[in-house]
Amino acid sequence: MDWNTEITKASERISSHIQKTPVLSCTGFGLDFPIQLKLEQVQHTGSFKARGAFNTLLSHDVPEAGLVAASGGNHGAAVAYAAHQLGHRARIYVPEMAGPAKISLIRNSGADLQVVPGAYANAMEQAQAYEAETGAMQVHAYDAPATVAGQGTCFAEWQAQGLEADTLMIAVGGGGLVAGALAWFQRAKKIIAVEPETSCALHAALKEGSPVDVEVSGVAANALGAKRIGQICFDHAREQDITSLTVSDAAITSAQAALWRERRLLVEPAGATALAALTSGAYRPAEGERVAVLLCGGNIAPDPLA
Amino acid sequence: MDWNTEITKASERISSHIQKTPVLSCTGFGLDFPIQLKLEQVQHTGSFKARGAFNTLLSHDVPEAGLVAASGGNHGAAVAYAAHQLGHRARIYVPEMAGPAKISLIRNSGADLQVVPGAYANAMEQAQAYEAETGAMQVHAYDAPATVAGQGTCFAEWQAQGLEADTLMIAVGGGGLVAGALAWFQRAKKIIAVEPETSCALHAALKEGSPVDVEVSGVAANALGAKRIGQICFDHAREQDITSLTVSDAAITSAQAALWRERRLLVEPAGATALAALTSGAYRPAEGERVAVLLCGGNIAPDPLA
Repeated sequence: MDWNTEITKASERISSHIQKTPVLSCTGFGLDFPIQLKLEQVQHTGSFKARGAFNTLLSHDVPEAGLVAASGGNHGAAVAYAAHQLGHRARIYVPEMAGPAKISLIRNSGADLQVVPGAYANAMEQAQAYEAETGAMQVHAYDAPATVAGQGTCFAEWQAQGLEADTLMIAVGGGGLVAGALAWFQRAKKIIAVEPETSCALHAALKEGSPVDVEVSGVAANALGAKRIGQICFDHAREQDITSLTVSDAAITSAQAALWRERRLLVEPAGATALAALTSGAYRPAEGERVAVLLCGGNIAPDPLA
Repeated sequence: MDWNTEITKASERISSHIQKTPVLSCTGFGLDFPIQLKLEQVQHTGSFKARGAFNTLLSHDVPEAGLVAASGGNHGAAVAYAAHQLGHRARIYVPEMAGPAKISLIRNSGADLQVVPGAYANAMEQAQAYEAETGAMQVHAYDAPATVAGQGTCFAEWQAQGLEADTLMIAVGGGGLVAGALAWFQRAKKIIAVEPETSCALHAALKEGSPVDVEVSGVAANALGAKRIGQICFDHAREQDITSLTVSDAAITSAQAALWRERRLLVEPAGATALAALTSGAYRPAEGERVAVLLCGGNIAPDPLA
């Protein structure tokens, strides 16, 4: 697949539907080097997922039965929003662990929401059954070319905004976002994949030599808790021999607190996971290495203004 | 005074000490036109006040007795932070109404903090007494040329970032920020001054023909609750015959909620006050008029991550 062409086409396709997200260069967080942040949490529905959702819907013929998706929350919210904007029906399956913020986000979009006991994998089972039964189109959260190309637009956009970095820190759940980065940059940047110790499907897959099932838990599990890494992500990661790191829940919540305390940026734990690899010292850049960090989501609970 | 020169000098003086803040263009908030936002709440200490504080400290000889300031909270936090960064002592007087977020921000900066019963004016009395007694240098929150020139750097920066707007919406408390805008743009942009109905010192002054004392209360009072508009601001506002509007507390909290719900930007009520003039319909731009909104502060209480 010619990923550069796919991502460039995706950028054109979705440009009028997505929010171009700001970047800022800053110091702080206890680091002795500056970093550049991209504030993707200000994207529609509070995460990068809107990119993949719009790209999928706009590059396929959506059947009368509409759309179906399984999601830890952010993908479901994105599909529900994109479906509403484009006039399609959507049924979204989320696990209970999605939490009240994400569940209410999806409910408010007008989608047909189904809350499923258990974890992401259980929601996915039901979504697949619904797809088979109704002919609704499945919008995969991370392991589909249109999803990956959509997430890749985030990096095409960042590059056009003048990204000056040698190294990008990216949080990984099912791997759609980091696959988009690997597909876009094709070794032009060093990509550091960061996962929670308690939800590290990519890390485990790279260690085992192929995708394997992992247990998922922890503070970022409702966003990063994929049981098995996507094949597209795994193939890119293995081919490019990327650096895969894990961070503790304590490191994640500490980075999340620092983003609020020092920059008034309020993100969910997943949104602070990439930064946590720097603030915890899990990744130490070389002298002069320019580092950029993607803040990927901001759907915290409870509502901070409630 | 040659404000263009003063603000340009201030920009150079403070550039290594302040955070360049991002801008984003977006739609939403129930508006049928796009707006450009500048996210000044990500500034050091969570508001634009750091600009005026650094400019004041860096353009004066600070006495051995150090600095003194009275503040509703944000200015005090900025002076405390700048003093700490530059190695000066600082005593900060805040009224109880500053609230726990701002009081803890100042306390954590290492300043000598004095919490005073009553409102801003009471804190100011004590700050003046301390100045007279010790020879400490008073850093005025809004009505001093170095403060106004410092706040003006926000607009010089925005212009250099490619501001494309006919009209700027700016919240007003004591008037330092809007004076900086008026001093910088000198009629090149239409400036809309927005105040809470319950704290509207500029609005009252323009009506009366000179600064007058007003009562202050409401959700944004700990940031915008100046009892009397600064003379520098008043002179600029009268000379340029600016538009002065007021908004209700309900309009402010509604705009604040919309910023979080739609863009995951969490600001304090004062930070949403300028936007509230648009979302409430208090200001309706003409067809094709390009509107920009400054988000000026993000120090909400309670801590959203507590």
